[in-house]
Amino acid sequence: MVRTILAVMSCLVFISGVEAQPLNLVPMPAKVQMGSGQLLIGPTFSVSIVGRHEPRLDRVVEIFLGQLGRQIGMPPIDMQVADSTNATLLIQAAGGTKDVQELGEDESYRLEISTSGARLNAPTTLGIMRGLQTILQLVQTTSAGFAVTAVSIEDSPRFPWRGLMIDVGRHFIPLDVLRRNLDGMAAVKLNVFHWHLSENQGFRIESKKFPKLQSMGSDGLYYTQDEVRGVIAYARERGIRVVPEFDMPGHATAWFVGYPELASGSGPYQIERRWGVFDPAMDPTREETYKFLDAFIGEMAGLFPDQFFHIGGDEVNGKEWDANPKIQSFMRAHSLKDHNDLQAYFNQRVQKIVAKHGKTMLGWDEILRPDLPKSIVIQSWRGPDSLAQAAKQGYRGLLSSGYYVDLMWSAERHYAADPLSGAAASLTPEEQKRILGGEACMWAEYVSPENIDSRIWPRTAAIAERLWSPQDVRDVNSMYQRLSVASNWLDGFGLTHNSSYAPMLRRIAGTNDIAALKVLGDVLEPVKDYTREETAPVPATSASPLNRVVDAIRPESATARQFADAVEQLLGSAAKPGSEARVRNLLSVWRDNQVELGSQFEKSLLLREVAPISQNLSALGAAGLAALDYLDRGQPAPPAWVAQQLALVEQAEKPQAQLLIMVAPSVRKLIQASAGQAAPSLSPAK
Amino acid sequence: MVRTILAVMSCLVFISGVEAQPLNLVPMPAKVQMGSGQLLIGPTFSVSIVGRHEPRLDRVVEIFLGQLGRQIGMPPIDMQVADSTNATLLIQAAGGTKDVQELGEDESYRLEISTSGARLNAPTTLGIMRGLQTILQLVQTTSAGFAVTAVSIEDSPRFPWRGLMIDVGRHFIPLDVLRRNLDGMAAVKLNVFHWHLSENQGFRIESKKFPKLQSMGSDGLYYTQDEVRGVIAYARERGIRVVPEFDMPGHATAWFVGYPELASGSGPYQIERRWGVFDPAMDPTREETYKFLDAFIGEMAGLFPDQFFHIGGDEVNGKEWDANPKIQSFMRAHSLKDHNDLQAYFNQRVQKIVAKHGKTMLGWDEILRPDLPKSIVIQSWRGPDSLAQAAKQGYRGLLSSGYYVDLMWSAERHYAADPLSGAAASLTPEEQKRILGGEACMWAEYVSPENIDSRIWPRTAAIAERLWSPQDVRDVNSMYQRLSVASNWLDGFGLTHNSSYAPMLRRIAGTNDIAALKVLGDVLEPVKDYTREETAPVPATSASPLNRVVDAIRPESATARQFADAVEQLLGSAAKPGSEARVRNLLSVWRDNQVELGSQFEKSLLLREVAPISQNLSALGAAGLAALDYLDRGQPAPPAWVAQQLALVEQAEKPQAQLLIMVAPSVRKLIQASAGQAAPSLSPAK
Repeated sequence: MVRTILAVMSCLVFISGVEAQPLNLVPMPAKVQMGSGQLLIGPTFSVSIVGRHEPRLDRVVEIFLGQLGRQIGMPPIDMQVADSTNATLLIQAAGGTKDVQELGEDESYRLEISTSGARLNAPTTLGIMRGLQTILQLVQTTSAGFAVTAVSIEDSPRFPWRGLMIDVGRHFIPLDVLRRNLDGMAAVKLNVFHWHLSENQGFRIESKKFPKLQSMGSDGLYYTQDEVRGVIAYARERGIRVVPEFDMPGHATAWFVGYPELASGSGPYQIERRWGVFDPAMDPTREETYKFLDAFIGEMAGLFPDQFFHIGGDEVNGKEWDANPKIQSFMRAHSLKDHNDLQAYFNQRVQKIVAKHGKTMLGWDEILRPDLPKSIVIQSWRGPDSLAQAAKQGYRGLLSSGYYVDLMWSAERHYAADPLSGAAASLTPEEQKRILGGEACMWAEYVSPENIDSRIWPRTAAIAERLWSPQDVRDVNSMYQRLSVASNWLDGFGLTHNSSYAPMLRRIAGTNDIAALKVLGDVLEPVKDYTREETAPVPATSASPLNRVVDAIRPESATARQFADAVEQLLGSAAKPGSEARVRNLLSVWRDNQVELGSQFEKSLLLREVAPISQNLSALGAAGLAALDYLDRGQPAPPAWVAQQLALVEQAEKPQAQLLIMVAPSVRKLIQASAGQAAPSLSPAK
Repeated sequence: MVRTILAVMSCLVFISGVEAQPLNLVPMPAKVQMGSGQLLIGPTFSVSIVGRHEPRLDRVVEIFLGQLGRQIGMPPIDMQVADSTNATLLIQAAGGTKDVQELGEDESYRLEISTSGARLNAPTTLGIMRGLQTILQLVQTTSAGFAVTAVSIEDSPRFPWRGLMIDVGRHFIPLDVLRRNLDGMAAVKLNVFHWHLSENQGFRIESKKFPKLQSMGSDGLYYTQDEVRGVIAYARERGIRVVPEFDMPGHATAWFVGYPELASGSGPYQIERRWGVFDPAMDPTREETYKFLDAFIGEMAGLFPDQFFHIGGDEVNGKEWDANPKIQSFMRAHSLKDHNDLQAYFNQRVQKIVAKHGKTMLGWDEILRPDLPKSIVIQSWRGPDSLAQAAKQGYRGLLSSGYYVDLMWSAERHYAADPLSGAAASLTPEEQKRILGGEACMWAEYVSPENIDSRIWPRTAAIAERLWSPQDVRDVNSMYQRLSVASNWLDGFGLTHNSSYAPMLRRIAGTNDIAALKVLGDVLEPVKDYTREETAPVPATSASPLNRVVDAIRPESATARQFADAVEQLLGSAAKPGSEARVRNLLSVWRDNQVELGSQFEKSLLLREVAPISQNLSALGAAGLAALDYLDRGQPAPPAWVAQQLALVEQAEKPQAQLLIMVAPSVRKLIQASAGQAAPSLSPAK
């Protein structure tokens, strides 16, 4: 059977001998062999589905053509079934897909692009989806129009579970934001959307059996079941499984607002507004708790088709259990010596319920106890060693430690985290197979619909590459080069990680004139790990505004990274012409920026908290320039001056307004070099 | 009855004596009296509904608080009914609203903001909606946090019909794009969304009675009836009526693909891909046509609750009628002397059908014939004179001439168009009352979901002001000043008129480095009126890509306007210090830009078409600088040089790649001044 879908954009036209451009693919495929020439994507473009053909494939190609159309600016019309003889992209899937996407379904594909046509083969429709994303990433602006480079690609994922978790409990995230993130996930070949649906701060899904869960536990901010079905369908069309998480027995305060009888304390309960770990926990000693969970999990198991069901299970502090005499006597009666034992008892009961409803249980590190069946999966926030330990005991696991995107790490640091590193590196092959992959985690204390995309993207694309590409794909410079292209390319899905920056700065400044604020913001990053909590003058809550500079600026400063490279080059032995000019230029802009920005501070309360940071940046600029002057003159800077400047750098490096000036370490290097400790005179290299 | 809705953002806190900022309101209210001081919008904010209270008002306040939250970066939680004693914004609506929003419903409101609280009163919930939008626009970033200025406003619209038409026939526009535009409309107090749903190029709505309309006439791009109901509900919550248009008997090719028997030709018909006026027209002589229309209009009249029903009626060329002997004999039998008579006959029949289904008919200029009842409304694309003529005959009318935003006019030019200008200015008051207002029209030959917002906004806000504010509000500088603030503020609704620019330029250039392309793009505008069609090397179709520079750049160049102002000032008698530096700075950037951009042309086909424009801009920069040198030296430029440079300007002013360099006229002024014709030496003013 041969069917062809013809789109407006048709005729992959032959041309050759045009400039070769680097392949900006993220994740990098397993095997790439460059061809010569390229295939033009002209005013029309045709795709033909060859051979075995499930209806789902039509929709997959339709989505592909729609996205290709948006990407190159073509209307999505004229799509029609036609003869294949004129088609230039031939798609052939040897098999279909499961009714419900399964863990480990074959995602491999083979893509051949020559100057005369393209062919995409895969064992399954899933592999076709992955290959089509590769084609989209190959499309480039060229001197002859849009084109894809001639190339031969054989590709398959390193790990079968490559996820993104979004916490919609702490801050509700609307459907349109989820959908554009699913598009972004599909673009970088992630295949699991882990939907963290309940938290102390909110219960975010409609239950028809227990409607007070959402009516009293969500501030009105929840998804209806129809909406959930819509998200699942949207994800499925993109080859993404949806795994729901209902955190229990802790992290569950929002459940107790409507159903206080579930809890171990006496209630009443309010939706939690603060952040942290709290005492309320389900009562594991009452049969009614399990009756409730049986009915609830049954309802949700019917709604979510995926095989896996996440029960959370993290961070139970046991205080409500300790304070409840009935629970204490239950523990004594059952020889449960502490709250960990009691939670293990709870988990066993819940596991049976989950299994009864046909699902496989998944939970965070804490659920790992030898009394649970080997079928369960452990998601590790503790690290690869904890994962290795689980694998040795026969449990399957996922790495999330190293992939918490709320911690504001650099892409490089996430990229370095590997599920098979540390103790996992020395597991047997069979044990290693139990490590299924990993998940980026977007915990949501400090995200809103306005800035969440900027916390997820583009760094999550680096994590996606770690989980898809061969382990030896680890060149950081190449990753950053490709990530910068991918970041702008991801704009095309409506993701706002780039576009929300300027509007947020304008709001802070109260003016459209944000050039100077942007100069400052471009070298800042939010403080890392949990420093934001630790340094907050007043503890934040779920009702706190997210409109400060720290909320607007990006997790990783590209300017600082580029400046560090330029300084390194300048001070190294192989300084290129022009590098001093580039460094001087940036330093001058920073030195003078305080003058530009200074007049704005008095007009905005939100801006004022960065005034000291702006002064520090200015001082760093001046110090760096002075250091360069010493270097240029080839004479060491006076020790007193050096000491004074280094003290200034140290001062500037301290977090302020929960922000860090990321260029400070590079300025320190310039000062140290000017002291004559290592660096030669710069004159020859200028 | 007193209810209070408390939101997170609460406590309008007293402060005073802070700097007064200009009120950036669009449209400008009828009466504004400035108070002193301001009301802070602190970490929480409370609203209380006082007195009579319809349920709809709750939802209106909820939308307001949601938008306020997004605007200032606060989570939309903690909304609850509470006592009014602590509330600081009191809302009181004397009456409710009609079940279906009516033309002429009272939209007035009165807003009092003092340093101790705010009060919004209105006769109806509609008035409350308008007043809440004014409050949102009053929120400013200040030295003390977000605040609204103390002010007293009495406001009501000049015209009761203030619309935006979006043509979704020529290019399909997805629901999310419509919704964000409805938000933008509500923000500037527009109250009619005119939905142009059918065209030669597409029939965009599901008919359950005639499903081949959408299944064969839309390329699969249409709205389901559920989706339409969703849009109507969304609009209603924002005080916007939804008027559907089904263009007939012409502009209807897409109908005939599924139902060729409706047409006057012999068929078969294909969806039209070209732009223009085409021959196919409904057959007005067959009773079956009216039976079809009766059933179809009945179905749509049930779906769209609004009183008005637009039947188009424009641009019928009569050729299919002339070519059909049966139609010719019908005309002779009924003494219809030409195709205008036949269309008038058709309109009479259709008007009776529309009236039978309880609706009032609306149509373009062409439907105006004395044989139609006075109840119908004429929408004029011909101008205020045509409108005045209709009013004199007793017909109500709307102005759209002057408000076609697809023609790429400046905001200033749209702003000058007034429904009561020209012949309409001398109508009697009673006749003037028949002129109901006007509508901005977004015809969609050259818009896609990617760039449509940039064609509508911010210029439509200037039209909205013309239709809402008193006629004597016409200071163009003030309008532009307020529009520039409103434009960025409209970003907050997800409108992409600002944010889509850079991604489109990046696609064209094929690189993230678009600084030089932006310098060029910022001084360009698309050609005006219908010049794009007239100058197209190949006629565009609905399948053409919309990815060229002309599709990316904005309809109005702010840079060119600011440059023109600076040149005017420099050459005028009261040149301010620094104006020559500003002018020189821009000219230098343009002169040097060709060097920056030059290397990129060979890498991109899409970019290459603006290479000559870039060269021209460079030459204009050099010419302007040389002219300034002559002026500085206080000696006239040599006539030969002047002639040569003026020829260059003339060359640069010619459309190229369907673009105009908007700074050329100002450079001409500099050259003319340098010839010593009028301008003094610049030295004293520098």
